[in-house]
Amino acid sequence: MGRPRVGVLSRRLIGETALRLLDDDRDTGFRMSDLARALGVRVSSLYNHVENKTAVFAEIREILAERIDADAAPDPRWDHALRNWAHAYRAAFAAHPSTVAYLSALPLDATSTVGRSYDHLASQLQDAGWSAAESMSVIVAVESFVLGSALDASAPQDMLDPGDRADVPTFAAAYHARRELAEVQGATPADLAFTLGLDALLEGLRLRLGRG
Amino acid sequence: MGRPRVGVLSRRLIGETALRLLDDDRDTGFRMSDLARALGVRVSSLYNHVENKTAVFAEIREILAERIDADAAPDPRWDHALRNWAHAYRAAFAAHPSTVAYLSALPLDATSTVGRSYDHLASQLQDAGWSAAESMSVIVAVESFVLGSALDASAPQDMLDPGDRADVPTFAAAYHARRELAEVQGATPADLAFTLGLDALLEGLRLRLGRG
Repeated sequence: MGRPRVGVLSRRLIGETALRLLDDDRDTGFRMSDLARALGVRVSSLYNHVENKTAVFAEIREILAERIDADAAPDPRWDHALRNWAHAYRAAFAAHPSTVAYLSALPLDATSTVGRSYDHLASQLQDAGWSAAESMSVIVAVESFVLGSALDASAPQDMLDPGDRADVPTFAAAYHARRELAEVQGATPADLAFTLGLDALLEGLRLRLGRG
Repeated sequence: MGRPRVGVLSRRLIGETALRLLDDDRDTGFRMSDLARALGVRVSSLYNHVENKTAVFAEIREILAERIDADAAPDPRWDHALRNWAHAYRAAFAAHPSTVAYLSALPLDATSTVGRSYDHLASQLQDAGWSAAESMSVIVAVESFVLGSALDASAPQDMLDPGDRADVPTFAAAYHARRELAEVQGATPADLAFTLGLDALLEGLRLRLGRG
């Protein structure tokens, strides 16, 4: 690949490079000087494209949001649209778990793609009968489930392994049963929890809407 | 308060101090030297109680797990028990959002309180009719929703504010409607999404169990 030339430096390339640095070092994050070194440019050159580290994170959000938009197949049924969005959203963040905590607290830019995705989903939910306030809560609730599930999907899949611990027999049996079921189904334990939880969440939302 | 004397140094005090440092500085975390300075001891003294930074995080997990256990009222009905657990769990982590990403990937200690909580919940779920594998997925799904919701609860409650943006009218209306509803109910916007989502998730789980 080699170092990109200074001439091609862009906000997008800075965001992509920061994302790679975050992926490499889940714990400590990155400094602007690390970013400049990785790009083979001076720190001052970065500031021609991003005002500060917050702007780099905002660009990372745009990169992930565009992937989600590209991967989430639209569907005229609100619950199917939410399911597709949830799957694409989880995949995008599970690939970059170190961004979850930061982005979940970073205010949305006034030009963010995310706002347009919310607008589209909120319209679909309201057309189906959800009130304006509820449509926002539904989106945020699904998003919360997805972000927690993305962290779970990216965690070591044996992190709950009780080993030869003798004081938690029911948990140990449940842990191993889920692992075996996942293997049979060609999925990960995290996939099983995500699918079961998302199905239940959407089923519960359908019921609530039906009751009006 | 003053500095604690070296004589009272303990794994628990180290964990509590690390938690305070994480709360103060959500972005960058802490180094063992920061921890020693905050406690007024030498770094080498820390290692009489914790092997490394991972052990400090494991102790933080125990502190939070004990709070959750103390706050989650037991209930003979599995869905009520899950609801109480989810509320206590969200409160504990919303107070310390910077721990979420790290702890969600940290393998469980063989003596962790968390294992006993899982064991208890898994027993209750299996007694109610859930299979062993499903009981584990139910616990992890609720946990994922809770962790995402804890991040949302600790985020600035106006972080999604579309401001005077004109291209997302339905999202903007939904955003303001949720804020107003929250105000009327004396809750936060995050509370509304959490309650709606948890209700729907539990309702969906009850239905699935009922269908067998």
